[in-house]
Amino acid sequence: MSKDLTLLFYPKSIAIVGASSNVGKVGGIVLQNIRQSGYKGNIYPVNPNYENIDTLKCYAKLELLPEIPDLLIIAVPISVTLTTLQEAGIKGIKNAVIYAAGFKEIGKEGEQLEEQLKQISTQYGINVIGPNCLGFVNNLCPLNATFAKSSGQSGNIRFISQSGAIASSMFDWCDAHGLGFAEFVTLGNKTVLNENDILQFFLDNPIDKLTSEEQKGLSHVSPIGLYLESITNGVEFMRLTREIGKINPIFIIKPGKTVAAAKAMQSHTGAIAGADFVLEKALEQSGVIRCNTLSEFFNLARAFAWEDAPNGPNIAVISNAGGPAVISADATSDAGLSLAQFDETKKKQLLEILPRAASIMNPVDVLGDALADRIGKATEIVLQTKGVDAILIILTPQVMTQIGKTASLIGELSEKYQKPIFCSFIGGGMVAEGEKILNQYKIPTFHFPEEAIMAIGSMWKWRQFQKEQITISSEPFESILINFDSVKTITQSAKNQSSLDNQQATKVFEVAGINVPKSKLINTLAEGIIFAEENKWPVVLKLSAPGLLHKTEYGGVITNITNEREIVLAWEKIEKNKLRLPIETQSNVMVQIQQDVGKGIEVIVGVKRDPIFGPVLLFGAGGIMAELIADRNLHVLPISKNQAQQLVEKAKIHLLLRGYRGTLPYAEKPLYDLIVRFSKLIEMSPEIKEMEINPVIITHDSVYAVDGKIILK
Amino acid sequence: MSKDLTLLFYPKSIAIVGASSNVGKVGGIVLQNIRQSGYKGNIYPVNPNYENIDTLKCYAKLELLPEIPDLLIIAVPISVTLTTLQEAGIKGIKNAVIYAAGFKEIGKEGEQLEEQLKQISTQYGINVIGPNCLGFVNNLCPLNATFAKSSGQSGNIRFISQSGAIASSMFDWCDAHGLGFAEFVTLGNKTVLNENDILQFFLDNPIDKLTSEEQKGLSHVSPIGLYLESITNGVEFMRLTREIGKINPIFIIKPGKTVAAAKAMQSHTGAIAGADFVLEKALEQSGVIRCNTLSEFFNLARAFAWEDAPNGPNIAVISNAGGPAVISADATSDAGLSLAQFDETKKKQLLEILPRAASIMNPVDVLGDALADRIGKATEIVLQTKGVDAILIILTPQVMTQIGKTASLIGELSEKYQKPIFCSFIGGGMVAEGEKILNQYKIPTFHFPEEAIMAIGSMWKWRQFQKEQITISSEPFESILINFDSVKTITQSAKNQSSLDNQQATKVFEVAGINVPKSKLINTLAEGIIFAEENKWPVVLKLSAPGLLHKTEYGGVITNITNEREIVLAWEKIEKNKLRLPIETQSNVMVQIQQDVGKGIEVIVGVKRDPIFGPVLLFGAGGIMAELIADRNLHVLPISKNQAQQLVEKAKIHLLLRGYRGTLPYAEKPLYDLIVRFSKLIEMSPEIKEMEINPVIITHDSVYAVDGKIILK
Repeated sequence: MSKDLTLLFYPKSIAIVGASSNVGKVGGIVLQNIRQSGYKGNIYPVNPNYENIDTLKCYAKLELLPEIPDLLIIAVPISVTLTTLQEAGIKGIKNAVIYAAGFKEIGKEGEQLEEQLKQISTQYGINVIGPNCLGFVNNLCPLNATFAKSSGQSGNIRFISQSGAIASSMFDWCDAHGLGFAEFVTLGNKTVLNENDILQFFLDNPIDKLTSEEQKGLSHVSPIGLYLESITNGVEFMRLTREIGKINPIFIIKPGKTVAAAKAMQSHTGAIAGADFVLEKALEQSGVIRCNTLSEFFNLARAFAWEDAPNGPNIAVISNAGGPAVISADATSDAGLSLAQFDETKKKQLLEILPRAASIMNPVDVLGDALADRIGKATEIVLQTKGVDAILIILTPQVMTQIGKTASLIGELSEKYQKPIFCSFIGGGMVAEGEKILNQYKIPTFHFPEEAIMAIGSMWKWRQFQKEQITISSEPFESILINFDSVKTITQSAKNQSSLDNQQATKVFEVAGINVPKSKLINTLAEGIIFAEENKWPVVLKLSAPGLLHKTEYGGVITNITNEREIVLAWEKIEKNKLRLPIETQSNVMVQIQQDVGKGIEVIVGVKRDPIFGPVLLFGAGGIMAELIADRNLHVLPISKNQAQQLVEKAKIHLLLRGYRGTLPYAEKPLYDLIVRFSKLIEMSPEIKEMEINPVIITHDSVYAVDGKIILK
Repeated sequence: MSKDLTLLFYPKSIAIVGASSNVGKVGGIVLQNIRQSGYKGNIYPVNPNYENIDTLKCYAKLELLPEIPDLLIIAVPISVTLTTLQEAGIKGIKNAVIYAAGFKEIGKEGEQLEEQLKQISTQYGINVIGPNCLGFVNNLCPLNATFAKSSGQSGNIRFISQSGAIASSMFDWCDAHGLGFAEFVTLGNKTVLNENDILQFFLDNPIDKLTSEEQKGLSHVSPIGLYLESITNGVEFMRLTREIGKINPIFIIKPGKTVAAAKAMQSHTGAIAGADFVLEKALEQSGVIRCNTLSEFFNLARAFAWEDAPNGPNIAVISNAGGPAVISADATSDAGLSLAQFDETKKKQLLEILPRAASIMNPVDVLGDALADRIGKATEIVLQTKGVDAILIILTPQVMTQIGKTASLIGELSEKYQKPIFCSFIGGGMVAEGEKILNQYKIPTFHFPEEAIMAIGSMWKWRQFQKEQITISSEPFESILINFDSVKTITQSAKNQSSLDNQQATKVFEVAGINVPKSKLINTLAEGIIFAEENKWPVVLKLSAPGLLHKTEYGGVITNITNEREIVLAWEKIEKNKLRLPIETQSNVMVQIQQDVGKGIEVIVGVKRDPIFGPVLLFGAGGIMAELIADRNLHVLPISKNQAQQLVEKAKIHLLLRGYRGTLPYAEKPLYDLIVRFSKLIEMSPEIKEMEINPVIITHDSVYAVDGKIILK
């Protein structure tokens, strides 16, 4: 099917099956919405019960239409939805919106219907939005193809929402706050078109149709806001968002962090959530800003739409009250921001226009008796200050405060200067007047200053991502040579096992160029002594069997065997411990002897395949530390050496790795290499389901994959 | 001075110095406010420039007043403030409000004026609110003695705000949302009266004057909201809030968490902040809910005023949209809440009134096409459900949604049932209509459901505190016998030292009944050998000198000396390491020998005096763990054994203490005893500034205070 969505979003003609003259019905509302939105193409109502609807000729059947419409709106009950789609296919229609609910979200029966819907769309190559959705608005067309109310004001922001209800709330909120958008697409069940298709369309079709009047006061980017309950294809999603994020910020609200929510979500849309901590990491790696609350999401929408992201983390706060200024200062570091430092010249300038009791430091306290003029002057001085990346102006409604006049002055300054300005006028009815004026100037307002700081922090986070992308794109991924044929030989030899035994696993790691201590499977004590003499004492004895994953629990590992006398005792002990194993394992267990690499820092390197985002690397403290410090550091693969370094440096265990209390630093560089090789291994080996090296022992000179396991698909 | 504030808040007569007929002036506004607030006592304007103001006779001087007014409002510039206060003192006036700014907040010169103000008030026994404040409102009197606008609606909530600006915002916000309050006191510089005085007044004067009409829809408590930038006397504050918290919830916003904020605050009010993490702990121990943002504070004010705190953590969510319901589910666990489970009977009841595709689990999804009636029915079923402690109703403005009608139905149900109800209607102008109706019924509304969940969580947190108080009050503090005379003998013998050496410190701990390994100061190797033979090998050698606090860094500790050969080597080594010490320490350093108690878990127990809250205990992991796991657990003293147990069990190191990976558990009980004795020691020894045992070694049988330091005042 053609995924060119241009005619879907910019149709020259639209047919509406189920169109009605009754605006209490979905088919009536959508017809009214299309006409009221100023749509300029041909409109064909389809409904056997009407000859005409208002001034439009109405058709009894799709096949009677005088042309093949670019877009079909299916506004009929679920019982006739599929036959309608079939007829559309026969007619040659390529784009459709389906509103009806009653598909997979209601259970098994609905799932079957949805499967049929998918088949029809594949057969005829129809791009379908929905079902169980609200349709879409494209204010650039203009076209409101939803059955919800929306003011239809044009703007630079683009929304994708899986939920129609959230869209309804957003429409109402946008209207109330004067926020215009370009497109608003609701996805519903995502049976055919999903978020990636729409993102691809956004990437291919930048917004360039706003008039200079519409553009006035807006930011210079086209932010994309996403409300998603599931992500269809994580790898593709990361590719697209990373690409878009280089130019336009993307922010998302994705519920389902907690078990309670995941449960609620499943009963709501039937969507099964992947692990939320993987999603969190994937979003971070793609520069997508995750909002934790709807409040953050709504606030950030306006902030990104109306102001450019700051070019640095240094903000200045101007306030007519000390308290909220202090509260803002409190919020800055959590948001990854700092308060800009003013130099002596600036302070002098501020001193000249402010009363003696005012604070000329940042936050600037212009005092409670400040009239609009004083606030304006202080703001202008700060706007002219190099090193200030964004400004937050806080106003409380005190006796002398000129709320409206102050808002207008700030508005005028915002047109004169490029620097992003944010406002928080704290109160109720009295400050609402000021907020309204500020919003007319497209200055984002926040009920409380902490919300403003949080939004500025998120904007700066995106700007940092954008800046980093320039560096990263010029940094080649290492070409690491691994003999994958040898790997395949080992895994295929074990293809009737569900997992590789320790000896096989370490062999795979060795082939991948990972440093593995010498080891051997032995049948007798004599073999062990020979190994130790040949390879140097001390040695380790371990039990090894396919599927034996927690051998320490059975006493299956004896370390630091330094001489013949000790190995005799150890051999006895490990032979005895064999009997503690589960019966089914006892028959094919063997003893592995290994060089003991001595003391070092123990870490774990592991990888699992996430159903949404593919292989995900885990790095963290090993041994007893793992339990204590919860040192889980993830990276969605692939990974470069630089990224491996960042991953290691962010880990808590790094406090020890870098050397502590006078000890020398540990061998970090070979660790990065190990991580990259380990990661390549799973990327190139689809037969491997998950694997782990535990522990990797890091000494002052080298790293050793001491023990590992590989689970096959 | 009399701290009976009854006549301050309920004066039978008021004089206003600086009263004016010009409502552009502070003295004009306050006179107007007093009269418009419906104040029923005598009003005496004092101003030599008027004969009369409106219908009131105006007096040229305070001394000419026909009676001693119960309250004096000083609404004159700072230049004449002090002389006015002096005249008031002479006249015999006992209560005053001072608005003027220009005191300690502007620096040295102002500090002197403030000192004089304090002296005058002490001399004449005047209770002063301010200076640098906005005055107070007492709607129960009724009396608005501020120069700010306030609707003066009566309610059950009581506010104390250090900042007048925050008060202005709150007034505006309360008006806009229909929230009435009983008293609103602004404190300003707190020169004479501080938060504790007002809290004491609140404790002594419960609200019992609301008419049944005013009480309608309100909660059954009188919540107290605090905005404080500093706390004057932490010990008293904890006593009062803990007492009040048994009946009425207290919530606070206290800025200054971060260094940036503390800096900003200092330039703002001259208040020097104590350590914020101590404050955090003190508030937790007193059951005071700390709000992290102004938004939380404003929301919680209304929640506590209008709804009773839930009696359990189990909430039910009813929503006409799946997405926001899932988002709410996400927020519950963070807020310390859970989703209530419905039994089969309930599910059946819901099934009967809801369409098939709806979710009858919790969250209940009534679907997007729900009319008011369906939402009302579902709400009533849930209101009747045992095990549901609070209800959140979420509405998005979809095509069929009856916003106003739904709000009215919920309002009626709230009058019929006692269970607390919270609403979040998400959107803009369309939902505002519903919010207004809900607020008329005194149902708290929130822009977003997460904010509601957070407020419910805070309310439940308070309810838990309240319930715990009943248990705790019946639990006696242990009477532990310590020979404080012996302690004093040791500390006094060291009174020319700033700190005790290791040997002295462990002696103090021993006197307090803490288990200390045998130890001795020795001058020769021979003495050491004798000690070891008498007390059993292994032993430890340590350098010991007053003021020597980080001896390990100089190689000043050698452990696990198991025989004579080893002690010879160790002695040589430690003698050499003496020379690495700072020169000033070398002259009086000695060697201490100590029994080696062997391996165990190392923890730190320390105590410091916080300038606001007094002695604060620290417990956490010792040794290298301390750096890795940031295991700082505080308790503001005193502490009972039960509390010590809770402290230990909350620590991260407890993962090891309870026994890990098959090891036996460590001796926790003696640890609680050690903590209580250690705490008693500082409580009873004012000469000790801070002290620490580091490490305490915990074995499977016992605990040992291996090394300690005590710093004297």
